[in-house]
Amino acid sequence: MNADALSTALDQQRIETPSWGYGNSGTRFKTFSAPGAARDVWEKIEDAAEVHRLTGIAPSVALHIPWDAVSNYAELRRFAESRGVTLGAINPNVFQDDAYKLGSIAHPDEQVREQAMTHLLDCVEIMKQTGSRDLSLWFADGTNYAGQDDLRARKRRVRQALKRVHDALPEGGRMLVEYKLFEPAFYATDLFDWGAAYAHCLAIGDKAQVLVDLGHHAQSVNIEQIVAFLLDEGRLGGFHFNARRYADDDLIVGTTNPFELFCIYAELLSAERSEDTLTQTTAHNVAYMIDQSHNIEPKVEAMLQSVLNCQEAYAKALLIDRERLHAAQQAGDVLEAQRTLMDAFRTDVRPLLAGWRRSKGLPEDPVAVHRASGYQDKVRRDRGTATAAGGGFPVKS
Amino acid sequence: MNADALSTALDQQRIETPSWGYGNSGTRFKTFSAPGAARDVWEKIEDAAEVHRLTGIAPSVALHIPWDAVSNYAELRRFAESRGVTLGAINPNVFQDDAYKLGSIAHPDEQVREQAMTHLLDCVEIMKQTGSRDLSLWFADGTNYAGQDDLRARKRRVRQALKRVHDALPEGGRMLVEYKLFEPAFYATDLFDWGAAYAHCLAIGDKAQVLVDLGHHAQSVNIEQIVAFLLDEGRLGGFHFNARRYADDDLIVGTTNPFELFCIYAELLSAERSEDTLTQTTAHNVAYMIDQSHNIEPKVEAMLQSVLNCQEAYAKALLIDRERLHAAQQAGDVLEAQRTLMDAFRTDVRPLLAGWRRSKGLPEDPVAVHRASGYQDKVRRDRGTATAAGGGFPVKS
Amino acid sequence: MNADALSTALDQQRIETPSWGYGNSGTRFKTFSAPGAARDVWEKIEDAAEVHRLTGIAPSVALHIPWDAVSNYAELRRFAESRGVTLGAINPNVFQDDAYKLGSIAHPDEQVREQAMTHLLDCVEIMKQTGSRDLSLWFADGTNYAGQDDLRARKRRVRQALKRVHDALPEGGRMLVEYKLFEPAFYATDLFDWGAAYAHCLAIGDKAQVLVDLGHHAQSVNIEQIVAFLLDEGRLGGFHFNARRYADDDLIVGTTNPFELFCIYAELLSAERSEDTLTQTTAHNVAYMIDQSHNIEPKVEAMLQSVLNCQEAYAKALLIDRERLHAAQQAGDVLEAQRTLMDAFRTDVRPLLAGWRRSKGLPEDPVAVHRASGYQDKVRRDRGTATAAGGGFPVKS
Amino acid sequence: MNADALSTALDQQRIETPSWGYGNSGTRFKTFSAPGAARDVWEKIEDAAEVHRLTGIAPSVALHIPWDAVSNYAELRRFAESRGVTLGAINPNVFQDDAYKLGSIAHPDEQVREQAMTHLLDCVEIMKQTGSRDLSLWFADGTNYAGQDDLRARKRRVRQALKRVHDALPEGGRMLVEYKLFEPAFYATDLFDWGAAYAHCLAIGDKAQVLVDLGHHAQSVNIEQIVAFLLDEGRLGGFHFNARRYADDDLIVGTTNPFELFCIYAELLSAERSEDTLTQTTAHNVAYMIDQSHNIEPKVEAMLQSVLNCQEAYAKALLIDRERLHAAQQAGDVLEAQRTLMDAFRTDVRPLLAGWRRSKGLPEDPVAVHRASGYQDKVRRDRGTATAAGGGFPVKS
Repeated sequence: MNADALSTALDQQRIETPSWGYGNSGTRFKTFSAPGAARDVWEKIEDAAEVHRLTGIAPSVALHIPWDAVSNYAELRRFAESRGVTLGAINPNVFQDDAYKLGSIAHPDEQVREQAMTHLLDCVEIMKQTGSRDLSLWFADGTNYAGQDDLRARKRRVRQALKRVHDALPEGGRMLVEYKLFEPAFYATDLFDWGAAYAHCLAIGDKAQVLVDLGHHAQSVNIEQIVAFLLDEGRLGGFHFNARRYADDDLIVGTTNPFELFCIYAELLSAERSEDTLTQTTAHNVAYMIDQSHNIEPKVEAMLQSVLNCQEAYAKALLIDRERLHAAQQAGDVLEAQRTLMDAFRTDVRPLLAGWRRSKGLPEDPVAVHRASGYQDKVRRDRGTATAAGGGFPVKS
Repeated sequence: MNADALSTALDQQRIETPSWGYGNSGTRFKTFSAPGAARDVWEKIEDAAEVHRLTGIAPSVALHIPWDAVSNYAELRRFAESRGVTLGAINPNVFQDDAYKLGSIAHPDEQVREQAMTHLLDCVEIMKQTGSRDLSLWFADGTNYAGQDDLRARKRRVRQALKRVHDALPEGGRMLVEYKLFEPAFYATDLFDWGAAYAHCLAIGDKAQVLVDLGHHAQSVNIEQIVAFLLDEGRLGGFHFNARRYADDDLIVGTTNPFELFCIYAELLSAERSEDTLTQTTAHNVAYMIDQSHNIEPKVEAMLQSVLNCQEAYAKALLIDRERLHAAQQAGDVLEAQRTLMDAFRTDVRPLLAGWRRSKGLPEDPVAVHRASGYQDKVRRDRGTATAAGGGFPVKS
Repeated sequence: MNADALSTALDQQRIETPSWGYGNSGTRFKTFSAPGAARDVWEKIEDAAEVHRLTGIAPSVALHIPWDAVSNYAELRRFAESRGVTLGAINPNVFQDDAYKLGSIAHPDEQVREQAMTHLLDCVEIMKQTGSRDLSLWFADGTNYAGQDDLRARKRRVRQALKRVHDALPEGGRMLVEYKLFEPAFYATDLFDWGAAYAHCLAIGDKAQVLVDLGHHAQSVNIEQIVAFLLDEGRLGGFHFNARRYADDDLIVGTTNPFELFCIYAELLSAERSEDTLTQTTAHNVAYMIDQSHNIEPKVEAMLQSVLNCQEAYAKALLIDRERLHAAQQAGDVLEAQRTLMDAFRTDVRPLLAGWRRSKGLPEDPVAVHRASGYQDKVRRDRGTATAAGGGFPVKS
Repeated sequence: MNADALSTALDQQRIETPSWGYGNSGTRFKTFSAPGAARDVWEKIEDAAEVHRLTGIAPSVALHIPWDAVSNYAELRRFAESRGVTLGAINPNVFQDDAYKLGSIAHPDEQVREQAMTHLLDCVEIMKQTGSRDLSLWFADGTNYAGQDDLRARKRRVRQALKRVHDALPEGGRMLVEYKLFEPAFYATDLFDWGAAYAHCLAIGDKAQVLVDLGHHAQSVNIEQIVAFLLDEGRLGGFHFNARRYADDDLIVGTTNPFELFCIYAELLSAERSEDTLTQTTAHNVAYMIDQSHNIEPKVEAMLQSVLNCQEAYAKALLIDRERLHAAQQAGDVLEAQRTLMDAFRTDVRPLLAGWRRSKGLPEDPVAVHRASGYQDKVRRDRGTATAAGGGFPVKS
């Protein structure tokens, strides 16, 4: 790849940051209040805009409803645009109401299922107002004990609910169906792996795509292979990027195993260049989103680092010598093929990225500029320290 | 369930034992030669017949080709029938020829793929001669290193090969597609989980069903939920039963976590009683097969124990009070529902099974009768001790 | 074992229930408020007394400081005794103050370490007032990112702190050092496994013993072997019993894999009968404590079920035919040895336990009696529904 | 670190390659015969010498007895020295004799234990003749089923055996005690983790040190933390380097997660610079050894790549700015600390290493030179293709 092609490719990368990544969050044991953490959706958008200003590749913000609910989404949209960003995926929340103790769309009680459905359909309406393409669906539904509920009955309830949401989507809209091995359900999660999400998507229609969260797999599962499989089937809709070593640790993407992130980007770029139209189109429409919990780090700097780590992995993947790789693969030259991939990974892309940033009028070292900018001090002064809940995931402030 | 219904239900259980479970096997470190271990397919059938004679529920033997290849399958079939058993699933082997170092049906070289295809189609012919309904397909295909081969290209080769086999199947025949997390491939296995197997089956046709081996999942994966999902989709074809704590340990089924085996049978029985025709039919056609490696145990006794452990789990699952369970589930009474399941599991079904065996003219305590029968001494004398290979999986004697 | 010996053995079992298991708890996503959940330490003791009244084997309650802190522990002690229970292990909390964001006893800042030490030493004082033998130490200390802190420096800080606590313990007092694979730390937990806890205990003195929480291990780790090892070294101090399939799920003990709980009790009973004095004494002094989070279940019934599950596992372990087992082990008769263990596990001990309860004037079916007693309705009326935090682990009400 | 210091540090790195890595090996399913693979210890030494010639940092070869047993070790030693390498650690084998079906040093039968002991003591004698400092002990001992044998009794047999070996060691000799989670034992492995190995070493004496094999841990375990802990306790004796994603995959080190290998070296270098004498001395005496199974790759090239991957990880670890790191850690600046580590990892050290090699008269690109050298063709011609066993681990040729 020559320098121009590389630069053009770098121009095309996009990472969506999540509004909730700018607020206080924690584990079940404790949420530490971070001075300056965003207290509402307006402040979250300000923070997201700061990340985009510094990186140039994070132009949209995912919203979480009701945490980010406002009375006037047109106003929110204008506000975001005035800050240089757009509103991205809409994330409904059907896990924090008291009714959802035993599930939402899979709950044994039809009334609870309807309550969840109402919220989901409301979110479809919000999509129209925010101009969002994607409805990003994660369900905490599941059971804690064998026998607690009927696994097949729950599956059918999920299918039915997803179908109703699907059919309500606007033209051009998509639903991204996320899966997760466990947590908060500890016996069985209704959407438990990519296969389950895929089977549902296939059954309900063309607007349903699978969403891969890097932290939602069993230990040792090969995520880039799932990515490749879904791309080839035309059903990979998007990512929730983060890092983990143990469970759904929600750490800064690329920190636990940077090689894995690189391998994932390698599959995505390979699919973008596929001769198969479906695969190629699917790859080009993947929604790249971050989903992290910054429990002990400054939120904005943590998000900035996450975006930059994605850019680094992507840039390295661009450097793979695909012809040499293909030739070695076809020849069964195992070590030469492996080395070809590693050669790209081994390359230090910091100079390349600094050059690209310079050419775009962006700071060469976004982290250093951010730290020197006084942004963190300013928000600490302006916002103070919001009281965090006793533990856990953020609640609406 | 009343006593008659229980007895009738017990009459219907079937477990197929594998020919290779009667021969020497080992780990990569060592295959210990067991005195009296079967040396060829005729002796394996003798052993399988002994297990059926003692249990009454193991009336068929799975064959592995070429380990069990003979010149005349009609003769083999008659031999088996003369011993009171039938020939069951045919298991092709496309992993032990030198050509398969980098794969079989997913190999980058078309010639190797064709060699594998020829063997698979030969096995379809053998099915016709043995009267087998099922072709049981496991592939060792995969890669050891990132970059070693193109993941999507391999997937497409697999799809194409499975489709060709599918279309060659006889009327009423089925192919069971097995998946496995890893081993012998250590980076990516081409058929890596149930979702991959399911997607292929769906794409190639109605005769393709998924085969679940209990030892082929990542740690902590909920197998009974996969079973329930596949049953509900009409795509569960069969099982390879065994037990494991770590990887694909291939131990005696039910020894590591008897509760898990019970939960699996609970899902199967639930599906058999489903009002949905597809689910019900699928459940009734599941092929229950054992796939174990008896590395340190006497082979026949180990197999006997395996069959009895399946019977115990099945009997306990029959005892679940489904009405009480359903009522508790609908009421959201988590603990009562869980306890209902546990009550069945807690029941000691040994007296029930002894009674059933008595009523069928079978030994009440098959293990004791086997140990007292002198069978093991006899085969030790007759067969001697076959020299085992230096390590690993059995090779054709 | 004859009936009298069995009954005597059953008399000796003790399970300590945790005060925090009677209050609201949740995951990081949500804490559901349970109607009637205990709101303070007095109500928690009432609930614990109810469990002991029904089972006869749960005569003590573990306290968590500061959640259960009172101004007058002598009064609390009298209150507990008036309800028929005693105060058990003291559990300090050095993870919920804002200062502990980057650790407590392993924090890089000495001032924070001193703050933690002060609390730990305060808890030693409380032990004296409550008459507790055991100080139960769990630390959330760890890091989320490679490089975040110096692993060896943190280890040394931990050693130093544990030593100080050790030396402050009263005569006859013990400290139980708990370890955990991960959560809330996601890169490295300072006390990361039994080996780390053991090494510290060995270095600091005789009053330090290892505490095993069943949910704090990596997948597939053999817990009963760790138990056996620590017993043999004289360093097993106690348990936190619970169940899990995935991470530290904190479910009702015995629900995920009842066979594992049985195997753990089998090792404990084996050690109790050891000819080695140290092993035997150690086994007799093990503190059996429950540590669970009842997120979706009624708290008292959940705890009752937990105690009964422990009793069941213990009773089955009592039934192991140790002579037959030993003979089979010595003869290398793998299957007979395994079957001997399984025979005990297969036994339905419900009749035995009902008989024992009858003989003690306890309800034969404690769960049924509890459900019929109106206890749950009463506390719901009396206590109402306490507002739970937005997510996570309980905070002091 | 300036250029001279870097060069000096690079001069000091040593990696020992294993004789068995040059011969045929496989999984339990199949051992593929590699053309040119070494057939005996003399050829293995030739291959090891080739790797050292190309890299300059692999000057010794580990031996496996009896695979590499010869009648005259003085002659073998001279042969090795004539090729430019020395004989390294001696690895006894007490897992491939028929007697060891149920264990070696932990076997219930004293006669088998004595057989194993005799072999171990023979290997101590061989050490003296080969001039080896280290006896590297791995035991396949364990059980496949709960109840199969008495866990505490086995532990005591292990202790006793290790003690006898320890006391027979020559002055200046060491025993390295390896642990492993599982395989070939599938219920319990007698030396199951670092804690078990550490406890034994501590009990038996100063010449016993723990050996860490990177593939012998449960999923998600933090290996660099174990390394740091053992270094700080003065009990880390050595490594078996390799890579894995699943079980003990024995792949080329650094291929699965290069960041992990870097983190391990980071801890080792940190310990080398410790102010604590014990820690520092321990770090300087660590035996760095490779233990891999090259199932599908050319053996010599695979080993070459492994040595180079270790060199790359070591070089990156040398580049860590320890002052900046320490300052950030002390300040609790989580992201700056993490970034400091990552900055070293991100650096492309290929130019640095090429320069160092040039300065030592070594080929700048050892792999390219090896591939161009005709070495592989030559051994293929000279040695032909040795027939491999049907499956598994290598047996003595």
